[in-house]
Amino acid sequence: MADRKAAREEELMDFTLSPKVVQWLERISSFMNQHVYPIEKRVEDEMNVHGKEHTEPEILKAVRKQAKAEGLWNLFMPDEHYGKGLKVAEYAPLCELMGRSFIGPRAFNCMAPDTGNMEILADFGKPEQKKRWLEPCLEGAMRTCFSMTEPETAGSDPTQLATRAVREGDYYVINGHKWFTSGAVGASFAIAMVVTDPKAEAHRRASQIIVPTDAPGFTMVRAVPVMGHAGGGGHCEITYKDCRVPVTNLLGEEGDGFKIAQARLGPGRIHHCMRMIGVAERALELMCKRAATRFTHGSLLADKANVQQWIADSRIEIDATRLMVMHAAWKIDTVGKREARQEIAEIKVQAANMVMQVLDRAIQLHGALGMTGDTPIARFWRENRSMRIVDGPDEVHRMQISRREVRRWKQ
Amino acid sequence: MADRKAAREEELMDFTLSPKVVQWLERISSFMNQHVYPIEKRVEDEMNVHGKEHTEPEILKAVRKQAKAEGLWNLFMPDEHYGKGLKVAEYAPLCELMGRSFIGPRAFNCMAPDTGNMEILADFGKPEQKKRWLEPCLEGAMRTCFSMTEPETAGSDPTQLATRAVREGDYYVINGHKWFTSGAVGASFAIAMVVTDPKAEAHRRASQIIVPTDAPGFTMVRAVPVMGHAGGGGHCEITYKDCRVPVTNLLGEEGDGFKIAQARLGPGRIHHCMRMIGVAERALELMCKRAATRFTHGSLLADKANVQQWIADSRIEIDATRLMVMHAAWKIDTVGKREARQEIAEIKVQAANMVMQVLDRAIQLHGALGMTGDTPIARFWRENRSMRIVDGPDEVHRMQISRREVRRWKQ
Amino acid sequence: MADRKAAREEELMDFTLSPKVVQWLERISSFMNQHVYPIEKRVEDEMNVHGKEHTEPEILKAVRKQAKAEGLWNLFMPDEHYGKGLKVAEYAPLCELMGRSFIGPRAFNCMAPDTGNMEILADFGKPEQKKRWLEPCLEGAMRTCFSMTEPETAGSDPTQLATRAVREGDYYVINGHKWFTSGAVGASFAIAMVVTDPKAEAHRRASQIIVPTDAPGFTMVRAVPVMGHAGGGGHCEITYKDCRVPVTNLLGEEGDGFKIAQARLGPGRIHHCMRMIGVAERALELMCKRAATRFTHGSLLADKANVQQWIADSRIEIDATRLMVMHAAWKIDTVGKREARQEIAEIKVQAANMVMQVLDRAIQLHGALGMTGDTPIARFWRENRSMRIVDGPDEVHRMQISRREVRRWKQ
Amino acid sequence: MADRKAAREEELMDFTLSPKVVQWLERISSFMNQHVYPIEKRVEDEMNVHGKEHTEPEILKAVRKQAKAEGLWNLFMPDEHYGKGLKVAEYAPLCELMGRSFIGPRAFNCMAPDTGNMEILADFGKPEQKKRWLEPCLEGAMRTCFSMTEPETAGSDPTQLATRAVREGDYYVINGHKWFTSGAVGASFAIAMVVTDPKAEAHRRASQIIVPTDAPGFTMVRAVPVMGHAGGGGHCEITYKDCRVPVTNLLGEEGDGFKIAQARLGPGRIHHCMRMIGVAERALELMCKRAATRFTHGSLLADKANVQQWIADSRIEIDATRLMVMHAAWKIDTVGKREARQEIAEIKVQAANMVMQVLDRAIQLHGALGMTGDTPIARFWRENRSMRIVDGPDEVHRMQISRREVRRWKQ
Repeated sequence: MADRKAAREEELMDFTLSPKVVQWLERISSFMNQHVYPIEKRVEDEMNVHGKEHTEPEILKAVRKQAKAEGLWNLFMPDEHYGKGLKVAEYAPLCELMGRSFIGPRAFNCMAPDTGNMEILADFGKPEQKKRWLEPCLEGAMRTCFSMTEPETAGSDPTQLATRAVREGDYYVINGHKWFTSGAVGASFAIAMVVTDPKAEAHRRASQIIVPTDAPGFTMVRAVPVMGHAGGGGHCEITYKDCRVPVTNLLGEEGDGFKIAQARLGPGRIHHCMRMIGVAERALELMCKRAATRFTHGSLLADKANVQQWIADSRIEIDATRLMVMHAAWKIDTVGKREARQEIAEIKVQAANMVMQVLDRAIQLHGALGMTGDTPIARFWRENRSMRIVDGPDEVHRMQISRREVRRWKQ
Repeated sequence: MADRKAAREEELMDFTLSPKVVQWLERISSFMNQHVYPIEKRVEDEMNVHGKEHTEPEILKAVRKQAKAEGLWNLFMPDEHYGKGLKVAEYAPLCELMGRSFIGPRAFNCMAPDTGNMEILADFGKPEQKKRWLEPCLEGAMRTCFSMTEPETAGSDPTQLATRAVREGDYYVINGHKWFTSGAVGASFAIAMVVTDPKAEAHRRASQIIVPTDAPGFTMVRAVPVMGHAGGGGHCEITYKDCRVPVTNLLGEEGDGFKIAQARLGPGRIHHCMRMIGVAERALELMCKRAATRFTHGSLLADKANVQQWIADSRIEIDATRLMVMHAAWKIDTVGKREARQEIAEIKVQAANMVMQVLDRAIQLHGALGMTGDTPIARFWRENRSMRIVDGPDEVHRMQISRREVRRWKQ
Repeated sequence: MADRKAAREEELMDFTLSPKVVQWLERISSFMNQHVYPIEKRVEDEMNVHGKEHTEPEILKAVRKQAKAEGLWNLFMPDEHYGKGLKVAEYAPLCELMGRSFIGPRAFNCMAPDTGNMEILADFGKPEQKKRWLEPCLEGAMRTCFSMTEPETAGSDPTQLATRAVREGDYYVINGHKWFTSGAVGASFAIAMVVTDPKAEAHRRASQIIVPTDAPGFTMVRAVPVMGHAGGGGHCEITYKDCRVPVTNLLGEEGDGFKIAQARLGPGRIHHCMRMIGVAERALELMCKRAATRFTHGSLLADKANVQQWIADSRIEIDATRLMVMHAAWKIDTVGKREARQEIAEIKVQAANMVMQVLDRAIQLHGALGMTGDTPIARFWRENRSMRIVDGPDEVHRMQISRREVRRWKQ
Repeated sequence: MADRKAAREEELMDFTLSPKVVQWLERISSFMNQHVYPIEKRVEDEMNVHGKEHTEPEILKAVRKQAKAEGLWNLFMPDEHYGKGLKVAEYAPLCELMGRSFIGPRAFNCMAPDTGNMEILADFGKPEQKKRWLEPCLEGAMRTCFSMTEPETAGSDPTQLATRAVREGDYYVINGHKWFTSGAVGASFAIAMVVTDPKAEAHRRASQIIVPTDAPGFTMVRAVPVMGHAGGGGHCEITYKDCRVPVTNLLGEEGDGFKIAQARLGPGRIHHCMRMIGVAERALELMCKRAATRFTHGSLLADKANVQQWIADSRIEIDATRLMVMHAAWKIDTVGKREARQEIAEIKVQAANMVMQVLDRAIQLHGALGMTGDTPIARFWRENRSMRIVDGPDEVHRMQISRREVRRWKQ
């Protein structure tokens, strides 16, 4: 303790990555170069084939197997038993690296929403729940989805949640309507957010329950197209019609729904943000390469002042965002998620807006090419717009940031 | 003439639409309500079916037949013989109205790129060219594409054009590589921009030649996905490999390529801009309706100051853009395309940026719903991003606007 | 009437200025070049001398005399008797021209807030009020101020107005606290907005009363510095302490305060907006001239793509704003102020934001020079920031625009 | 070294301030509350009095004396002998705190441009130069100015520098024209950037020479008004007309001009940026306090969604900027100024734009009050606009950032 203090006095502020993290970065980077980037195009093409939109290509399965064999697996999981014991701020740079490819997170079994579901199963699951639901996920044998958002209510306003679970003997009977249940196509189970006690105070009304996707009354209505695309695990519309699940599927205690949701969000937002930074870095790399070679109207793009501004501002915004996310991750690791709420809200707004600005510039710099599928930019662009809405829209985060800020000066 | 002057002194500035235009507006509006909006969803769904992406649904064909029967057909064509004799500024408000639906322009046979191709055929076509290529288009029996952009060269820099046509006897032999040849799937012919005299001065190097899509050596490589979508007529990659077409297919004279392209652009940009205004008005209507009914965090969206800003700024930007486009159209009608170059460049930048801002707000206001296919917003968003690139990217228009502006003060 | 309709059918939309307006423009432009621009620097320097900040320099007085002699005087006044009988849309382009110089409006006796005060005296004044207060203003012998804003209440929220006038016999006794009473230094009278009936419904609570600045109880506390400057007529803080004025000084009827304020605002906002367009045009001219001559980092500024964007976007935004303001003016002239409320609110937001964007670019383009007093840019910049606040802040206009827009879709 | 590595592996990333820094922060914060904020208004008023614009008020002199007595003096100076031995990243948070008041830096003898001049005297001065010029500055007995910018040449383009020093015997004879020689009124000496060898390669052409302000041929032409203000030490126009100074006044070696300028810039930019963060934090505090108390149109400002956005975005942008500046400071401390060039360029753009955005929102939130001198906002606004221009305009930094970025991908 004394040493620690002394060390601080020496260092003041240290932004270096530890050798451990640097090693992981090198291994992942090498794996990405060797196995991930080269198959991107093929994976995309295979999933564009009619009837295969939701099917994981064999080539991607093989890469996953390889990653698992090399131990590049479940790195997100802070638990030492189930994962590698990496702290949030240690995993963050790895997450950025994986995020540079749309198949990166999946390759390393670090994809949302499974990561969040695995985390809460690890944190709140009873031993038998872990055995039955968590371990197959960690093995990569099972996929999951998270079923919270409802079409008729504002997801960011918890008092409006409408889906209802009523206890009948040893079962919960669930009725309700959800959508944006991401990853539901091919998932073995959903973790559903449902009202168990409508009369409780606002933050104790809901619970989270594990619902197998083959439970009677669970219906996957459709994979809702997002910006015109409905592939992969989908952002699904689900109806729960007298859907019965055993009470042993309850996660934590009755009324813990919001507590668990909160627990899920902190690291989850760090992951989202770091992946967006990865996306932005990839786009910036492509911008630089294009600018350095494309000649038009008398000069290279790289020598035009507007292109220079796009590149410079992208660099600035990416660096700003990364420092903010690393700082938030460091706060989660040192003082906890609750104390880091302001920082977590800040990065959610910052990263989701940053990534779209960078991508917009990348499209413009690439001209017609930027709109095609011949670079990953267009895909990133249409997929990342959702980040300003999911996990709380910009506006709700800003409302909360502002309230905390004003409160400081009221006291 | 004297009267005209006197009339002006009375009126100074008159923004009213003429009774003739008002009547057309009413007829089109009524047709849209009765026949177009109601089939939008069905057309979209039918074209989402595998193998039908490029096929015009029967229901849309029926609506086209109906529009033609009612005389709501070819309204874009200023020529009194082939069209209705509407001036650019008279057609503009009709074009806005059609633009409110993604199938509107097609319903009335007023869709790009056919409109531009029909215009130049009417203006520069020899009688036999008109008979063979223009008239079937006006009848709605033939579709066309425009083949100018090349992947390897900057489309906005005419000195870089590379596709070559060499005369051999009574034929041109064309070799080159194009993409973003919009509408090529299902088209009967392309109008191709090709270099006929590489040694001529910059603006006389190229010619436009009618190339039947079944000409030997004309290969449609693929419909390039734009923002992940490749449906409808497509934005196609084409190779010309010793592609032979008769010299009688030359449009105008050899070397007229740029002149014709310029002639094509003026009204074409008015159309694009007015359609984007239509898109933005539709999005604003949806925003208002949603804001008036969606309740969250203690109030209707319509009562939140940020939503009010989105709606107000959208209204301001739309109104600004419409006045600018109408003014440019009026200039084309009164002093000609050449004198209106500055105004045309201005509206291209203004409208293409405006529409994306309005759509971005519309998405955000709708939350998760705004990303789905359950409103037209997401489709508009992914389709209209291209408008900041096609027909000259923002940056090239700005360069030209600035040059003209600076030149004023040099003299 | 029939003819008018026919004429319209011919013209559809006419943006031409009438020969009458063109003549006025030429005369004013010539006068500006000969008399106004050349003395700008000297006027500024003389008013920078300590103790002379609020004194009109002799040289400016002489120019005013000259303008009056040439009949370039009171052009803002639509009344044929008191002014030149120009409609709002006819005066607007002249107002733009005057706005290009910070002394332009004063040179032609067309400066705020006197113009607004003269208008309401002409419209609502009793004959003796016109004789005593309006005519000397029209002669240029008297200056005025408008006393509405209060430091403790939100000016845009009429229900909060606190200054009170109580009738005692033939007098009103006024008590209250105002600021931003613009032009009070050197003014002969204020038109004060005061509550005469606190129990009346919101829009009938207030009245407007003419208060001579030498009335007992009227105290000019200070010229409040705005962006650090307090020269000219000042934006003054005023206390009314048992300030007695004869009841004959009431403008219109008791309770007419808001009605008169509304009447004042329509044309007043057109004037403000057109002056801001003049400011922006002047700044753009300076930008172009500088860009055409300043060489740095290997090229002229005019050849750099970011500078081109600044110039092009300024041109676009200015043209958009002018069309909007002309359209709003035309609506005021044709269907009246009330029907033009939406358009008037729109231009207020648009122009006030546009001018600051253009000025910001002008500063940046000029570098260090742009911050000095060696061009008019810095002065314009610090003076025009207020336009996003006075006469209703952006936010209040946006709220009202949004409400009207949403209302359209509720019905 | 081994220990250090181990410590890192434990901590990964540590954003904590050391206890030493925390203590300094507490002492400065307490001093600001007790002595600095309370006299702000009085200092401003005294310097607004005619003839006193450039005179340091007695009350400020007293506060400086007090700060010196308490050892809160010269904290910027990294040199252990002359300062407190604080590293750049240790001083940065103190600098932010001082920057919250426009008199803060002066109160603690940490004001620009003296800090930069003192640093280079400490680093490059010969012993006699230090004795004669540095020590009186450190004592607070002498003020300085830095004379680099020229009106006719672009300051950011070193090849254009025109002021010439020719050696004649034991003297340099200087001829040239400078402006924005900040702080020249009342300064004892300037450090002038002059060309000593026009034929040398670009970065060895210039030297820095100490020029006493009473040297013959040194003329302070005027304090150039910046945004209309010319008080304090001024941003002065200077002519050098056969101005003779002894060769012993040369700083470093002939040709070292750019090297010294570079050395000056790194920490100088950190200081500028941290002061701007201080300004922004002060503005945000005022925004929060106003929002929590001002009621209008039915609610507190703090409850309006647009105000919440202003506050939240300000918080986000400030936090982003601070992390970036701290990171850049840490890089200067650990790998040196040269390696930190990219980060230093980034923060210069980021901070200068951030502070203006925050101030603009602060003005708007305060309404009329925000434009007056009754809060420090208006002063901050007009003073900080210069930060996007001085020390290299945004555009030049962006050009350099972009070049470095593109270069990474060329290799």
